[in-house]
Amino acid sequence: MTAPVFDKIAIIGVGLLGASIAHAATAYEAAQRIAYYDASPDAMALAARVVPGLGANSASDAVRDADAVFLCTPVGAFGAVTAEIADALAPGAILTDVGSVKARAASDMAAACPNGVHLIPGHPVAGTEQSGPDAGFASLFQNAWHILTPLEDESEDYRDAVGQLTAFWETLGAKVETMSTRRHDRVLAITSHLPHLIAFNIVSTAYDMETVEEGEVVKYSAGGFRDFTRIAASDPTMWRDVFLTNKDAVLETLGRFSEDLAALQRAIRWGDGDTLMQEFTRARGIRKAIIDAGQDTDEVDFGRRPIED
Amino acid sequence: MTAPVFDKIAIIGVGLLGASIAHAATAYEAAQRIAYYDASPDAMALAARVVPGLGANSASDAVRDADAVFLCTPVGAFGAVTAEIADALAPGAILTDVGSVKARAASDMAAACPNGVHLIPGHPVAGTEQSGPDAGFASLFQNAWHILTPLEDESEDYRDAVGQLTAFWETLGAKVETMSTRRHDRVLAITSHLPHLIAFNIVSTAYDMETVEEGEVVKYSAGGFRDFTRIAASDPTMWRDVFLTNKDAVLETLGRFSEDLAALQRAIRWGDGDTLMQEFTRARGIRKAIIDAGQDTDEVDFGRRPIED
Repeated sequence: MTAPVFDKIAIIGVGLLGASIAHAATAYEAAQRIAYYDASPDAMALAARVVPGLGANSASDAVRDADAVFLCTPVGAFGAVTAEIADALAPGAILTDVGSVKARAASDMAAACPNGVHLIPGHPVAGTEQSGPDAGFASLFQNAWHILTPLEDESEDYRDAVGQLTAFWETLGAKVETMSTRRHDRVLAITSHLPHLIAFNIVSTAYDMETVEEGEVVKYSAGGFRDFTRIAASDPTMWRDVFLTNKDAVLETLGRFSEDLAALQRAIRWGDGDTLMQEFTRARGIRKAIIDAGQDTDEVDFGRRPIED
Repeated sequence: MTAPVFDKIAIIGVGLLGASIAHAATAYEAAQRIAYYDASPDAMALAARVVPGLGANSASDAVRDADAVFLCTPVGAFGAVTAEIADALAPGAILTDVGSVKARAASDMAAACPNGVHLIPGHPVAGTEQSGPDAGFASLFQNAWHILTPLEDESEDYRDAVGQLTAFWETLGAKVETMSTRRHDRVLAITSHLPHLIAFNIVSTAYDMETVEEGEVVKYSAGGFRDFTRIAASDPTMWRDVFLTNKDAVLETLGRFSEDLAALQRAIRWGDGDTLMQEFTRARGIRKAIIDAGQDTDEVDFGRRPIED
């Protein structure tokens, strides 16, 4: 057995991700001691019963002596939280996060991060539609990508810190990649932020029709709608912050989506079956690429052609 | 053990649904004999190895002497198939279908359906993203809704036929409801057709960005995108026909969706977090209604409030 990567870690914000880090660090022995803090008394009370580690009286108390600090609040709170804990951060400590937006998260943390503390923004591409301390579980990060967006700091200390943090996430089962904050935010805008926005929107549209259709939207949701409601059940506060802090990339991606949708709408209105066929067939290709890349486990035979037309 | 509902059934089009009817009718003893036909020689060759029943040389051969005939081709082919089998249909037989659009399906079938044959359009709200004869399985219809849209025919013979077809689907495990074709098409436009169109579209949008992002769209698809690719892997021919034949309801629903999306886009652009919060929170409510109605098995605690902001 190897020694834990860190002696002590601190987790600020004990929702799905914060609680899962505590479970995973305990299960896979990645940290000797865990301290956590959440601004919500209800979350702290629940965490005391279900999250491994010790609840602290304040964020500053939690981070004292910690080798690595994980910000797991919604992205919009990162600036304020970093300012609050700045004086208590140990020299040489790592400050990282799990925010879904990286450019804004990095700049908000950097503005308040003291010299001598190694700021290494990060984002685990993992989650469920559940939220809260009791939603956390140890295996959440197994085989998931973890994206680090390190600063342009060539010092040996900083490189060592990035190496340690990489080792920590690998111990939790994640596959670690590094990229720039800007690239991260563009890639996630299409792979995560836009899908969530669309899911929230379609559920909202149906909600207004629901009164019209007298409960039948719920009753017949197995036709495809149900999958969207699952995605749209994600934490509203977290997602509000994602859209407000990754505005440019989301709006750019949304613009492309709306253009493409207008083209499909036009094809439907004019009965242009060839265009629909072409677009729908193309959509299968990317599904195949995802399965080929081992990013999903379904076995679908895409070589199969439509059987009747 | 009760006697099978039908002595002989015929299945035209042996894709996911047609093959599943054959499997289920065999497994739950709902029919004594099964004949099937598919216009694709490849599908027939595959069906011969995996689908219970006897492959026929033509659609007309398949339906001869059948008590009930199930059209399982894409909706666009219903008119032509009905015309082709009209002369071979036995007097008193039931002609039904599994099409996702009912107004157009009903009128296309009615135009070619001989007198004395009981036309009862139907739609099982069940499916997977797979297609083809080898995708079928017996339990597909268990606990799924099956919607019948009977004609306005008050004769005793017709009522008996509706009763028999209801008994057949119930034997396969389905819960049977009846409604008008128009209502069906409006309800399904929001619960099934729009979700599929949106899924096809977002995957297509990502496909164009894919070259830009160098494979990262596929790599990080676990962030939400992957769920859309699964829906978008559905059979293109079937979905082309759905959108072409339920044009009005789909365009009306799509109009509402686009209006709502424009409002979210505006909120993002102007940093209106309150509007985003309100819409995202509302989306959780309908998820709760689906779970309360037993339409999905996830246990999500919607009483839980965001833990940190």
